[in-house]
Amino acid sequence: MEYMTGVKQKETVELGEILACGYEGKTVKVNGAVHAVRDMGEVAFVVLRKREGLLQCVFEEGKTRFDIRELKEAMTVEVEGIVRAEERAPGGFELRLDAIRVLSVPAAPLPFSVSKWKLPTTLETNLDNRAIALRNVRERAKFRIQEGIVRGFRDFLYGQGFTEIHTPKLGAKSAEGGANLFRLEYFHRPAILQQSPQFYKQMMVGVFDRVFETAPVFRAEKHNTKRHLNEYTSLDFEMGYIDDFTEIMAMETGFLQYTMRLLEREYAKELKMLDVTLPDVERIPVVRFDEAKRQVAGKYHRDIRNPYDLEPEEEALIGQYYKEECQADFVFVTHYPSKKRPFYAMDDPADPTFTLSFDLLFHGLEITTGGQRIHDYGELLEKIEKRGMTTEGMEQYLAVFRHGMPPHGGLGIGLERLTMKLLGEENVRETTLFPRDLSRLEP
Amino acid sequence: MEYMTGVKQKETVELGEILACGYEGKTVKVNGAVHAVRDMGEVAFVVLRKREGLLQCVFEEGKTRFDIRELKEAMTVEVEGIVRAEERAPGGFELRLDAIRVLSVPAAPLPFSVSKWKLPTTLETNLDNRAIALRNVRERAKFRIQEGIVRGFRDFLYGQGFTEIHTPKLGAKSAEGGANLFRLEYFHRPAILQQSPQFYKQMMVGVFDRVFETAPVFRAEKHNTKRHLNEYTSLDFEMGYIDDFTEIMAMETGFLQYTMRLLEREYAKELKMLDVTLPDVERIPVVRFDEAKRQVAGKYHRDIRNPYDLEPEEEALIGQYYKEECQADFVFVTHYPSKKRPFYAMDDPADPTFTLSFDLLFHGLEITTGGQRIHDYGELLEKIEKRGMTTEGMEQYLAVFRHGMPPHGGLGIGLERLTMKLLGEENVRETTLFPRDLSRLEP
Repeated sequence: MEYMTGVKQKETVELGEILACGYEGKTVKVNGAVHAVRDMGEVAFVVLRKREGLLQCVFEEGKTRFDIRELKEAMTVEVEGIVRAEERAPGGFELRLDAIRVLSVPAAPLPFSVSKWKLPTTLETNLDNRAIALRNVRERAKFRIQEGIVRGFRDFLYGQGFTEIHTPKLGAKSAEGGANLFRLEYFHRPAILQQSPQFYKQMMVGVFDRVFETAPVFRAEKHNTKRHLNEYTSLDFEMGYIDDFTEIMAMETGFLQYTMRLLEREYAKELKMLDVTLPDVERIPVVRFDEAKRQVAGKYHRDIRNPYDLEPEEEALIGQYYKEECQADFVFVTHYPSKKRPFYAMDDPADPTFTLSFDLLFHGLEITTGGQRIHDYGELLEKIEKRGMTTEGMEQYLAVFRHGMPPHGGLGIGLERLTMKLLGEENVRETTLFPRDLSRLEP
Repeated sequence: MEYMTGVKQKETVELGEILACGYEGKTVKVNGAVHAVRDMGEVAFVVLRKREGLLQCVFEEGKTRFDIRELKEAMTVEVEGIVRAEERAPGGFELRLDAIRVLSVPAAPLPFSVSKWKLPTTLETNLDNRAIALRNVRERAKFRIQEGIVRGFRDFLYGQGFTEIHTPKLGAKSAEGGANLFRLEYFHRPAILQQSPQFYKQMMVGVFDRVFETAPVFRAEKHNTKRHLNEYTSLDFEMGYIDDFTEIMAMETGFLQYTMRLLEREYAKELKMLDVTLPDVERIPVVRFDEAKRQVAGKYHRDIRNPYDLEPEEEALIGQYYKEECQADFVFVTHYPSKKRPFYAMDDPADPTFTLSFDLLFHGLEITTGGQRIHDYGELLEKIEKRGMTTEGMEQYLAVFRHGMPPHGGLGIGLERLTMKLLGEENVRETTLFPRDLSRLEP
């Protein structure tokens, strides 16, 4: 009888093992993709691309058992050689090749050079050839950092007593009403794709007190901007037994602090590669919506055209204002007008034209919307009625309030937007693995 | 200027803090939901439900500042009292109440008692009232364990050099062909919901060598069984530079070993509550598809009706066989017939009517499908042609092979099925937070 007993040590070594030292002078086997070949005649440099970075290998005519003319970019190979310290090589080591064994051969040359430091393509070409473009080590580094953000979000929240949930994306009804929904047929019934896990995460507060989810959301918005996507990854949490809606902002601040430290510790290589300076999140200023409007109107001589909403330009100016006045990268804007927030938002008892809600702006772009929710059944019904909405299809959502819910609130963070701002990118597609927008449904 | 500086210590304490001791004799504030009230006249037991478990509180007439008749199940409250050791209380402590402050009041009594040890409902009623039913501590414990499985999957794979990815669920084309797809309109273009991240995870092997994703998948299958869902959470990974397809099975075994230890360590309370004995995953037997078929045909006197596929009954018998013969809870069945595997599966060079693939059965149910994939461009085109398939819409997928891919393979694990089998449940809906099936699109 044959058995599986777990992961076995491979014969080949990884880059991290070599760089952790102890391999100097030893013969090792390494596999990887041929990232670049620089043939100098007697000697050739063969750069292998591995998941952790690049490894410089030295081919020597007459010494390495291989015909260098047969080596092509994008081949995958297993090489054998001696590890030598070499200051000029990335990581301080290189491999003097004894032999090369080809694992796979490409059928055609690459459409553009992925081994260049900066990918020599437009964003359009990059996205059209996404899976190839990401072989560029700086392009892929963006998504390593994105991994770090999601990991930070989860690990921080596990530590704060949150439970991870998986809520359905197919449903009969959405939290935010009928506009901007993708619709489909579900076994002869009309269905929608969820725009947010809002209803579900609130319902689960009654069960686990604190919950989070990291999952795709779908928005059929016809915006064609640098900051909109029609499918994106939403980092959502919802927490019960809050004393105040500022507890939600404090939790988000804690997440950002935890995550910046995680990135610093475990993604330093990628941060350096992309020349990223992490923002200061030790203290994040808080300003009321109406006050922020007045501040930028005053400082930048703007008229307040719409007192109930922030235009993208105003958000950018608030970001600029807090950068200039407080050296702040982030700012919490609180107390958004009630008429611009969903029905479930809790109005401020001190002035019900405003809500106990907030957005978090990062360099002038909204990356989070959150706030306290109504938890009283009667109050919720009243607000629904006042808005002229129907409760049809919301029976299950309303039932949890009917049967008792604690004071609670939460937020949603757009992962790709947060990554974009952290990396100083101008277009959210740069930090989306395979973007979905008005014109893009492939690859 | 007001600032957010991170998470602040709350005035209320959590169950874990009380149980970690040091609180005996101290006055504390605790919040929670009123799970049950047992009024004995002079004294009443008030059981609070908190995220970590239940807390027994003792109400004493004349001592506790509150009218006990006003206390109702499903209220949420903040209580103040003295912590006392009490052997008969869950966790060994109880709270002698000084005061009760009501945070929220339900509008109607619960449709069934959630405080019973076993929820007194049918599965149908449970699912119809899902968000209420999950307030039962054993019901919710199932999803704590599910959290542990996902967490184990991710943490183990991070440690093995995998990168987490987020691939789009909206697309123009799917990996498994046209059947069983949910279809929708995407800005006047036909679109589908992905049945699996297959194409994307393979494409990303060329970028990160090893990738994983934990995300929803959508299958418009008209099966109405205890093991099918139309939307579920798929734990997917894909790894490059494999020497052999058994490396994928070894990795899965490693994941199971890591996860069982994680559950034992961090979810012991929930395992005990559900009376779960964790399966032995130290060694998992491996058997060829054709051999397994012969074994159960021999032992259980069955005719082999279809030599190219396993019927559910046969899978169950293989499970039974390996339990009886090897005391094994899991068994890897390998070398499935080529005609029953997708076009991208790698055929066995030794006999191309079979593939280098496997399923993992857990107590006779398939919880994983995996295998090695074709990585050679020419070979892939040949297989597509042989099957009479079109390459239309697969240009981007094929491009990665055209431009060089390492030998690779991977697998997909159905999270809800794995949870179901681990907990000894008979219906996958028991371990799905909000199931989607032929008749269920809500709640």
